[in-house]
Amino acid sequence: MTIDDKLHAALDTIFSADAKLYQERGWNQRSGFGTHPAILNIDLANAWTRDGFRFTCEHMDDRIIPGVQRLLQSARIKQLPIIYTTTAFCSTFDMGAFPLKTPFEDLMIGTTATEIDERIAPIAGIDTLIVKKRPSAFAGTHLAGILRAAGIDTIICTGVTMAGCVRHTVEDALGEGFRSVVVRECVGDRVPAAVEWNLFDIDMKYCDVESLETVLEHLDSLAPRITS
Amino acid sequence: MTIDDKLHAALDTIFSADAKLYQERGWNQRSGFGTHPAILNIDLANAWTRDGFRFTCEHMDDRIIPGVQRLLQSARIKQLPIIYTTTAFCSTFDMGAFPLKTPFEDLMIGTTATEIDERIAPIAGIDTLIVKKRPSAFAGTHLAGILRAAGIDTIICTGVTMAGCVRHTVEDALGEGFRSVVVRECVGDRVPAAVEWNLFDIDMKYCDVESLETVLEHLDSLAPRITS
Amino acid sequence: MTIDDKLHAALDTIFSADAKLYQERGWNQRSGFGTHPAILNIDLANAWTRDGFRFTCEHMDDRIIPGVQRLLQSARIKQLPIIYTTTAFCSTFDMGAFPLKTPFEDLMIGTTATEIDERIAPIAGIDTLIVKKRPSAFAGTHLAGILRAAGIDTIICTGVTMAGCVRHTVEDALGEGFRSVVVRECVGDRVPAAVEWNLFDIDMKYCDVESLETVLEHLDSLAPRITS
Amino acid sequence: MTIDDKLHAALDTIFSADAKLYQERGWNQRSGFGTHPAILNIDLANAWTRDGFRFTCEHMDDRIIPGVQRLLQSARIKQLPIIYTTTAFCSTFDMGAFPLKTPFEDLMIGTTATEIDERIAPIAGIDTLIVKKRPSAFAGTHLAGILRAAGIDTIICTGVTMAGCVRHTVEDALGEGFRSVVVRECVGDRVPAAVEWNLFDIDMKYCDVESLETVLEHLDSLAPRITS
Repeated sequence: MTIDDKLHAALDTIFSADAKLYQERGWNQRSGFGTHPAILNIDLANAWTRDGFRFTCEHMDDRIIPGVQRLLQSARIKQLPIIYTTTAFCSTFDMGAFPLKTPFEDLMIGTTATEIDERIAPIAGIDTLIVKKRPSAFAGTHLAGILRAAGIDTIICTGVTMAGCVRHTVEDALGEGFRSVVVRECVGDRVPAAVEWNLFDIDMKYCDVESLETVLEHLDSLAPRITS
Repeated sequence: MTIDDKLHAALDTIFSADAKLYQERGWNQRSGFGTHPAILNIDLANAWTRDGFRFTCEHMDDRIIPGVQRLLQSARIKQLPIIYTTTAFCSTFDMGAFPLKTPFEDLMIGTTATEIDERIAPIAGIDTLIVKKRPSAFAGTHLAGILRAAGIDTIICTGVTMAGCVRHTVEDALGEGFRSVVVRECVGDRVPAAVEWNLFDIDMKYCDVESLETVLEHLDSLAPRITS
Repeated sequence: MTIDDKLHAALDTIFSADAKLYQERGWNQRSGFGTHPAILNIDLANAWTRDGFRFTCEHMDDRIIPGVQRLLQSARIKQLPIIYTTTAFCSTFDMGAFPLKTPFEDLMIGTTATEIDERIAPIAGIDTLIVKKRPSAFAGTHLAGILRAAGIDTIICTGVTMAGCVRHTVEDALGEGFRSVVVRECVGDRVPAAVEWNLFDIDMKYCDVESLETVLEHLDSLAPRITS
Repeated sequence: MTIDDKLHAALDTIFSADAKLYQERGWNQRSGFGTHPAILNIDLANAWTRDGFRFTCEHMDDRIIPGVQRLLQSARIKQLPIIYTTTAFCSTFDMGAFPLKTPFEDLMIGTTATEIDERIAPIAGIDTLIVKKRPSAFAGTHLAGILRAAGIDTIICTGVTMAGCVRHTVEDALGEGFRSVVVRECVGDRVPAAVEWNLFDIDMKYCDVESLETVLEHLDSLAPRITS
């Protein structure tokens, strides 16, 4: 067995034990797709999607970017709202307490690092870009308010990192009154096992984790969104 | 008596009656200057400071801009953190529910309208610019978190509008745990009496309203800020 | 002319001038009743509704309480969600920065002062009571999240005080993505002119102010709410 | 090897690989104890601390409760602010979207289940009890505001669950401008490996995880807190 195989065997053991307990105690309900979804792409900016950055994540070119491209194509056909976040700062003061744990000087506003990857770029004037400063897309932003104003009840999430920004976003989403669906093939991280661990954990408690195929099928079944 | 004279006579009558009641019931305490202030300039972007916009406010050239210039000069000598807000949007979706009451299409990101007035412009990389989406500088932003991280306990506020963004900011400031001082000569609005009414009301309940001279004297008395 | 007559004449002069400017510049849109309303009764606890408290407001017995009773009766027929707030604290620490401006020791949890007035009391287990700590019903509470989760798009507001908690609540409501309708006969304050001033101001910018009759007619026109 | 041994061996493998990457990339800084700490006990109510509830956690009697007792004793000597949270609801509406994933009807206000365990009970009128509705002690509460108002810069955290409320609280704490220290012996969960996984992860990114002995030593070194 390789180290990777051993890891996954160990995780499987953990998940079986945990899932049994959660199931017995009534967790692990399905929250579903709701009726008015929006797409939320979390921190798919170059500092995370391209090689050579301190924040670079795994599986961008072979899995995440192609997956997000397919998702966006389907979502645009149905005229769903598409929201992107990046994490970017204009001064040291702007970073708040985060540098106590992690250097953030690589993430300045106006640099290539914090721009959304052009392979999945937002359409100017149509899509919405939120420049966030904290892990969650909801924390310290106006996201919940604009989702509500547009009648959105569900966010379909992609992006990175699974153990940080994605996880924290779906935890907050439920508290802010929204369902979320995390697209399994469209999320990533930097460190081994973090994706698997967190997908398991959030699926039990905060959101539904679904395959790209399931999500695409659902989007295809929707009538196009009508905006007033 | 001119209409303006009549207005102010009427307001004086109201304020005397109200102040008496507030005083008898224990409101109208002084919260003071705290020990670690920062400057917060609210929405002093061209759409509010220059003629010809739907958001244009009164008394910019003769009072507010010169006042803010003096304040910034004193604050920079003491190396106080200086924060600016503007209100700007990247899409209709980004505006949320506000267009239900007020058109906001004049306030797009990247236009001159939403840039800070160059007469009091922020210093890039040093000052902090918050692109807010709601009246309060705290609502849907990370402002409270970064003030706390820097050990700030008091915000000294300038800007517009008094009946909207400034008022809402100081109400939120107290709730978020900060004192605020509003600089009387450095705030404005669009409509008659809104400045006087709100200065009176917030001084009773949420913050201290002080003259520019008093604030400058206080800043002059401070030791320069040391940042780690 | 009595002092009261003079006040109202002065306010009328102010409002005419202000309304003209707002109208010319595109404010003062009607946001309307939405499709899924909830009732929000702000701080109608004994400290505000009964005589002899530091927070006592005017016109409780002759106008506000009877008005809220009628509103609740109509809302219950249609099974609308009914939410109450009170402002109450468990320790001095719990009050945060507010005592810097206003003493709050009269508002302890578990006292009669902070209990909802029994003439309009919530139904235990059915209605929702939010124990807030700040003026706005949204600030530092989970209100926005539970409204969204229930599919609510509009809050119909009553309560006190107009220049504080009610005003701040409707400002926040719009930012959080909700319409609000303030019921003119069901709101109050402690000081002369504060109700009129703020009703005018928020109606221009943040919500619709409507008469009790208009609101009752609207509620009567609704189909009963179905909860899953 | 027992299953438990296998689990820990697997986790050790994961953590070594992850820690190396985090270290190389500049994460895993120490944020430290700050200068003005408060104690935050998360959801140590009977539904989590006692046997037989759906929310019951492991290691309460042998490790967590005795640890928290020692911590509180030291903190009281130094007159540090002590804050407790519980999670409790007054109606189904009050639960918001959470029942989409997890039943919450066991957590009603006024029941024994949601009262703080008497072995570590708050002192009425002195300590502060926050009745929260979401995982994080900061989300939808006024906690950040009252910590700031009291000049607190660091929260020392105990409680449950590690993969839910504790984790989410320390993520939010950093964003709200506070350091946090999680006391290793004083946190728990329901499912195997969740404590270890999350302690590792948050220590890399959001807070410092320290032993009870280290925390007690630090508290002993402090001068008693003086409140104005």
